[in-house]
Amino acid sequence: MAYSSVSDELVEEFNPKKEEKEGSILEVGDQAVWSLSSCKAVKSLLLGFGIDQLRDDSTDTYWQSDGQLPHLVNIQFRKKTTIQNIWIFADYKADESYTPSRISIRAGTGFSDLQEVEVVDLNEPNGWIAIPLKDAQDKIKPMFSDLEEKICTPDQLCPKPDNSALVFGKYFTDHMLEVSWDSKRGWAKPVISPMHNLQLHPGAKVLHYAIELFEGMKAYRGEDGCLRLFRPDRNMARMLSTAKRSSLPMFDAEEMIKCIKRLIQIDKEWIPYSTTSSLYIRPTFIATDPSLGVASPNEALLYVLLCPVGPYFTSGFKPISLMADPQYVRSWPGGCGAMKMGANYAPTIYIQKQSELLGHQQVLWLYGVDHQLTEVGTMNIFLFMLNRNGERELVTPPLDGLILPGVTRLSLLELAREWKEFRVVERTITMAEVIQAHEEERLLEIFGAGTACVVCPVSSISYQGREYNIPRSEPSLSQRFLKTMSDIHYGRVQHPWAVNI
Amino acid sequence: MAYSSVSDELVEEFNPKKEEKEGSILEVGDQAVWSLSSCKAVKSLLLGFGIDQLRDDSTDTYWQSDGQLPHLVNIQFRKKTTIQNIWIFADYKADESYTPSRISIRAGTGFSDLQEVEVVDLNEPNGWIAIPLKDAQDKIKPMFSDLEEKICTPDQLCPKPDNSALVFGKYFTDHMLEVSWDSKRGWAKPVISPMHNLQLHPGAKVLHYAIELFEGMKAYRGEDGCLRLFRPDRNMARMLSTAKRSSLPMFDAEEMIKCIKRLIQIDKEWIPYSTTSSLYIRPTFIATDPSLGVASPNEALLYVLLCPVGPYFTSGFKPISLMADPQYVRSWPGGCGAMKMGANYAPTIYIQKQSELLGHQQVLWLYGVDHQLTEVGTMNIFLFMLNRNGERELVTPPLDGLILPGVTRLSLLELAREWKEFRVVERTITMAEVIQAHEEERLLEIFGAGTACVVCPVSSISYQGREYNIPRSEPSLSQRFLKTMSDIHYGRVQHPWAVNI
Repeated sequence: MAYSSVSDELVEEFNPKKEEKEGSILEVGDQAVWSLSSCKAVKSLLLGFGIDQLRDDSTDTYWQSDGQLPHLVNIQFRKKTTIQNIWIFADYKADESYTPSRISIRAGTGFSDLQEVEVVDLNEPNGWIAIPLKDAQDKIKPMFSDLEEKICTPDQLCPKPDNSALVFGKYFTDHMLEVSWDSKRGWAKPVISPMHNLQLHPGAKVLHYAIELFEGMKAYRGEDGCLRLFRPDRNMARMLSTAKRSSLPMFDAEEMIKCIKRLIQIDKEWIPYSTTSSLYIRPTFIATDPSLGVASPNEALLYVLLCPVGPYFTSGFKPISLMADPQYVRSWPGGCGAMKMGANYAPTIYIQKQSELLGHQQVLWLYGVDHQLTEVGTMNIFLFMLNRNGERELVTPPLDGLILPGVTRLSLLELAREWKEFRVVERTITMAEVIQAHEEERLLEIFGAGTACVVCPVSSISYQGREYNIPRSEPSLSQRFLKTMSDIHYGRVQHPWAVNI
Repeated sequence: MAYSSVSDELVEEFNPKKEEKEGSILEVGDQAVWSLSSCKAVKSLLLGFGIDQLRDDSTDTYWQSDGQLPHLVNIQFRKKTTIQNIWIFADYKADESYTPSRISIRAGTGFSDLQEVEVVDLNEPNGWIAIPLKDAQDKIKPMFSDLEEKICTPDQLCPKPDNSALVFGKYFTDHMLEVSWDSKRGWAKPVISPMHNLQLHPGAKVLHYAIELFEGMKAYRGEDGCLRLFRPDRNMARMLSTAKRSSLPMFDAEEMIKCIKRLIQIDKEWIPYSTTSSLYIRPTFIATDPSLGVASPNEALLYVLLCPVGPYFTSGFKPISLMADPQYVRSWPGGCGAMKMGANYAPTIYIQKQSELLGHQQVLWLYGVDHQLTEVGTMNIFLFMLNRNGERELVTPPLDGLILPGVTRLSLLELAREWKEFRVVERTITMAEVIQAHEEERLLEIFGAGTACVVCPVSSISYQGREYNIPRSEPSLSQRFLKTMSDIHYGRVQHPWAVNI
């Protein structure tokens, strides 16, 4: 029975049917479609009770499950419905074999995304049991209004590096944001405190099974003095989708953005006074429970670090050379290549090193027997070319699950579609096509796009023993993208993507 | 020039040629094949110097590299050769453009596994420069003889759980082993100390890019009172191959086993007095440097935890039901499926949860359009069946890079081959074959094999909307394997796989 109730106490010796008549609770179970994972075949009046017997309001009849655990009762509502209590009548003494000992409540938008919101252990129950679900709503919200701030004392503040010394991800600001979660109590209060080491149990799941994810976004000091954050809603949406795939808990994206903005405000002096540098924001989410079972985490920590950064590549906006070797595959259908999980990065580092030993700067990741281009290093890839009809075309691989849905990728596509000056196409592109276009001199430009570098031109691709030099069109499209994005970042033009902090 | 020298000091104003004549050093460079990544084309006597000019003992001629950095000198020896010094003559004043400013020395068994062993920065050099490599040898050895022991005080000791309460990986013993590494100083002393939280910088690479790996092996308390470790050499060999793929440093496997044995001796009272339980050993290796660049780690920590464990599956030796859904893919060619990296586990947890929600216990991982069986949960998979000729056959997927090379897998194959009672085959097997064998009643048994569970029979496979019940042959092969392995583990038979601690 699914009840919408004004009370959420666990009440025994209580009949919700009576309460319903008195109008203090509202039964909503009838609005749902009920089904069972199994029930015994009906052979007599005393055997084989299913949905009808489960729902018939008689305490003499009941559901008789069959086969292996878990036994599932599926309650599907036709529209989004808030459930405050689930009521179950169980009588251990009347029939101990059909009395559940543990009930797990799972909620979701469909069968594929169910998440456990409550677990109740029953110890020889006798009577009506209320399982309040109101907490499940509260649990998914680390609230900005709860934010606790522990600010550095003056002697704890670190000296800021020169803009010229900024190496990507090497310097961290004075403070960090942390929110811890556990499956029993949900989210704790968000806390901003001085940057500090994490205390992790050596058995923490993040250290063994890589249950971890991150995001990357940037804040900029505008030429007008305003501080701006670039499309944080997009990063938070991606973070949530990665969290779901990582079996990490959901949170409220808007509240998280508010907390991150506050962190940036506190450390705002760390945002470089420069229009080539910025403040890199690294939300990170790790599973912390100290237990070696390969299973969903019961404890987790979401934290946010800030780093003042210069250009990602030490060579600046200089074009980079790529190694394209089909023997190395970054992601594959049925995998997690579209997620910003730590697990996608560890395997790439050895290959990146191989490319460096061979004199290249980044890896061009290929996929499939036809050597489709997927990503370049940790960036999305764009090709600007003349198609066979002589039309100018900006091509980037589609979001088919093999590549990360980059926020810079999305922004460049949106800009180009707004300009309406050339064709903009998301489609699979193979090395054979690239080589043919190269031979027919139809390649205008190739570049990577990502938060760390924004735009990064490619000078050459080494593939199957040959080196293909990539031209650069004049005027350069990558330069134009960089200029346009830069104008938005540094407030030279007003744009809804740049959110005031 | 590659010299084998009795001295490893950095000597300037020194001619190794003279030393060689005096017999104090031995030039071994002539035993190698030398090649260059590039050199300028020979156009005149003054341009285009290559290997001959690099090696001609004249300080007037030299190598002239060409094109992009890095410029490589490859020195390949025909057999394993110990190099103590590399000598280079450089004269900045004579030709500043061809004088290197940084030299990276990389060593390996071939081009594919080069690891940087030394980096030297040259500041306007003038004369012979010795680059001693002796340290590179020392660096790869955390030595047992250096082991430092900090033993718990009596009040720090934890109570031991009852054997009946042992859940996999939930309880840890009193002590842990740690060895830290950094790229400058190499390995530090191994330390055994009371179990404690790790202090990690929140920017540590392990928390962002999943640069982490682990191993799993077990120690047993024999019925004769002896403590035994099962094939630790195999686990350490796999740990080294995973470390290499993870860009983590090499170590000496034998020294590491000695350190682990010592740790077990100290915590030996934690080894259950039981022949269904054991002590699980979890070597873990993580990248710890606090820098967000996606790059090879410069700091790392190898640590070892011990857990008393009961049977892995709470259902004991009861057969498990599997979900086989080809939409989820664990590993793929060109990936790291054969490595025990954390990155292989995170993506599986959500799928495992899906299988549980559907009432199954584990996932049967399939690969390819023909739905090849690869692994089951975190185990290797074995099929015992009659082939089309009516012969009994034990089949397991081959080590093709998609599956983990399990130590239990290897042991069962070796046992079965020794028994010579049925065919033993490592080959690809598809779901179509399994279904056909099932229909023709040729399937005798299916089971998983791994360190945590040893052997685990499969009761059913849910695949494409159908449930296939898997029979169990009598006498059961999985039971026989379990018995044989168990006899070795608990010292009922003497076997070289069980190593005394």
